[in-house]
Amino acid sequence: MKTALSALGRRTAPPAISWLMKTALARPKLISLAAGFTDNPTLPVRLSRRLLNDILRSPLSGQPALQYGNTAGEMNLRTLTAKHLQKLDGGHDRAHSPEHVIITGGSQQLLYMTLEALCDEGDLILVEDPTYFVFLSILQSRGIRARGVKLERDGIDLAHLETVLARLKKSGELRRLKALYLVTYFQNPTGATTSLAKKRAVLKLLKTYERAAGHPLYLLEDAAYRELSFPARTDREDGPAEPPPTALTLPGARDRVIYAGTYSKPYAPGARLGFGILPEPLHTAVLRIKGNHDFGTANLLQQLLAQALATGLYDRHVARVRINYARKARVMHRALAEYFPPAVEIWAAGGGLYFWARLPHGISAGLKSKVFQTALKHDVLYVPGELCYADDPARSKPDHELRLSFGSASEANLREGIARLGQVLRKLI
Amino acid sequence: MKTALSALGRRTAPPAISWLMKTALARPKLISLAAGFTDNPTLPVRLSRRLLNDILRSPLSGQPALQYGNTAGEMNLRTLTAKHLQKLDGGHDRAHSPEHVIITGGSQQLLYMTLEALCDEGDLILVEDPTYFVFLSILQSRGIRARGVKLERDGIDLAHLETVLARLKKSGELRRLKALYLVTYFQNPTGATTSLAKKRAVLKLLKTYERAAGHPLYLLEDAAYRELSFPARTDREDGPAEPPPTALTLPGARDRVIYAGTYSKPYAPGARLGFGILPEPLHTAVLRIKGNHDFGTANLLQQLLAQALATGLYDRHVARVRINYARKARVMHRALAEYFPPAVEIWAAGGGLYFWARLPHGISAGLKSKVFQTALKHDVLYVPGELCYADDPARSKPDHELRLSFGSASEANLREGIARLGQVLRKLI
Repeated sequence: MKTALSALGRRTAPPAISWLMKTALARPKLISLAAGFTDNPTLPVRLSRRLLNDILRSPLSGQPALQYGNTAGEMNLRTLTAKHLQKLDGGHDRAHSPEHVIITGGSQQLLYMTLEALCDEGDLILVEDPTYFVFLSILQSRGIRARGVKLERDGIDLAHLETVLARLKKSGELRRLKALYLVTYFQNPTGATTSLAKKRAVLKLLKTYERAAGHPLYLLEDAAYRELSFPARTDREDGPAEPPPTALTLPGARDRVIYAGTYSKPYAPGARLGFGILPEPLHTAVLRIKGNHDFGTANLLQQLLAQALATGLYDRHVARVRINYARKARVMHRALAEYFPPAVEIWAAGGGLYFWARLPHGISAGLKSKVFQTALKHDVLYVPGELCYADDPARSKPDHELRLSFGSASEANLREGIARLGQVLRKLI
Repeated sequence: MKTALSALGRRTAPPAISWLMKTALARPKLISLAAGFTDNPTLPVRLSRRLLNDILRSPLSGQPALQYGNTAGEMNLRTLTAKHLQKLDGGHDRAHSPEHVIITGGSQQLLYMTLEALCDEGDLILVEDPTYFVFLSILQSRGIRARGVKLERDGIDLAHLETVLARLKKSGELRRLKALYLVTYFQNPTGATTSLAKKRAVLKLLKTYERAAGHPLYLLEDAAYRELSFPARTDREDGPAEPPPTALTLPGARDRVIYAGTYSKPYAPGARLGFGILPEPLHTAVLRIKGNHDFGTANLLQQLLAQALATGLYDRHVARVRINYARKARVMHRALAEYFPPAVEIWAAGGGLYFWARLPHGISAGLKSKVFQTALKHDVLYVPGELCYADDPARSKPDHELRLSFGSASEANLREGIARLGQVLRKLI
């Protein structure tokens, strides 16, 4: 008998890093520089306890927090979210409207629903080369084709973007293109941040190709790591002092930019909340789709974040988190300088959770490589960069890169992990 | 310029009851017997405060609750969920395996992902006539065709199910059929409960049609209201004393029954948690799909429910909730007896949140009917039964029925709401 599964059900591949996760569990002494987990000691345990106590102290605030809400999310959190974004954008005068905010169960859910609303099987999405691997998993699962665009230290390679767009136009495939996906702040996996100038140029470029596409071409801006910028007093100078504003602030962006944000990384992944700002008709479509997914994210979590934002305690918490990650990044940076061979190129980020390391060409760091296998024997794990590249027939997947996370390991383990990895690399390079 | 939306994005209709919800908000004096909300005063505000305090008291338990977890859900909650189900099934000896449990953001998410894994556009799902309207919304959005099967007081009409299956076989459409969806306990919208005998017969019948289908035919059992059974001491006698076991307990069911459960209704919708028990290969497919939706439901909520279950406080809470709903149902039942014309047939449930009222044939209770409009003028709202019927070309949609919820309105409002509605009906029948 055949399977009853749908094409999607049959096609959906296991997560790119499921094997890595299993490996980590099986080796208790392993130091993982692979996990994108946040730092345990800075999680807001006491703060959340205090805020939840306040919310659940009286039936007046406790009952609504435990009751159903509405699909778009609680109005107080949507309003606070719009204000919060305005503040991050340096008090930009064009306030984001709470009417366009949708609160989701993490920004991942927003990405998923946006792709549901936008793409049919066989449609095209442009992504950075490399990009966030779980986004690639959604594309794979839904039969959406990804096309890679080169990435530079300040964001996407504009000349290459134009080449790719021109090629799609020529081949007649531009009609299948729906959006360009950019992880604009301290990108996963490279740590690169897209400059405002590049965001402006990208929007302009997409616009010029809309006539040939026959429909709007959206910029999907994933700002997941935005709030994890290192404070200016860090000893690093090649990162941006303050992250640039979102593409939402650019003229003409309002009906073309989809913004995906999250409270999971800056506050707590265990209180899983994300949000989106979407132009019409996408906003309405995603809202209806969310009505079928869950008709609204858990109110208790929404009230927790609303309380944190309204009291200003969220900002105080994030300020502490940023200092902590800046310190951990410095520890990793120093260890890399001390233990890694000079032939390895390091992209040290100005925020987020990741450094990007590039071995000399010809030396593989992929899953089956000697580097990866030897590292594993020495009980240290990283994410092979090859997992972060789209399946693009026009582009080869580099396999000489490593994503190194300073998010979850302790400072001692960061040093020890990099030392172990450095030893492996010095032997094999 | 054309829209860039996908077929799904363009097709997905607004929720069936969005207009009802807007209406309710616009009329502050309105008594809503429409909302499926749970009872506010019995929400576990103090209990949740206590449990969250315990979880967040120490970093040891607090940090994991605020950190990322895994896609399937925390192992402690999955184990407790499997045990809990075993207890609900009267200590059935075939323990459900925690390995097959997936924790979700409400059972709605489980239903959504299951349909993603199972159905291509154009596939067929059999549903009760009437059924849960948000399930019908998923089908509409995803281009899955629904076919209705008559419902009786003790569950689906077996003879009609066989007729429908035979017809599909004859027309060659059986190959597109994937599953039968049953809301087996205190059904939304009718309050009907499916007997174990019917579940057994349904499984057997589906099995006999599998050869012609060429693939497994699943029974998707939605047990959302299962734990809201009224305790035996209720004055009602036509409802089941103890709800029957799940279809999972039947021989041969293990690889054919998909079970969707929830903690939202018995505990708290604001702490939105559901779960599924799925046979392979569906379990693996849904798990991979969930990896793309959100790679795991909020840990904080999972720990809250795990703590509630492990301490036994969950059971004590649910016992109180059941007594409360039984009392509210009695209030509604008495009011119906007092104020409704005898020509109206009432299906009084033995649990759940809903009564089902059927007007004499020929008298419409639909959205545009005189009954609905006059009720609205008298500030009382119900869910027209017609919204709960599938778009099935072979079946006409009855429009003479009403879903009456005793979930969220106070006892005084239940009486007053039924009195107002009774006045309208006495005038118009």
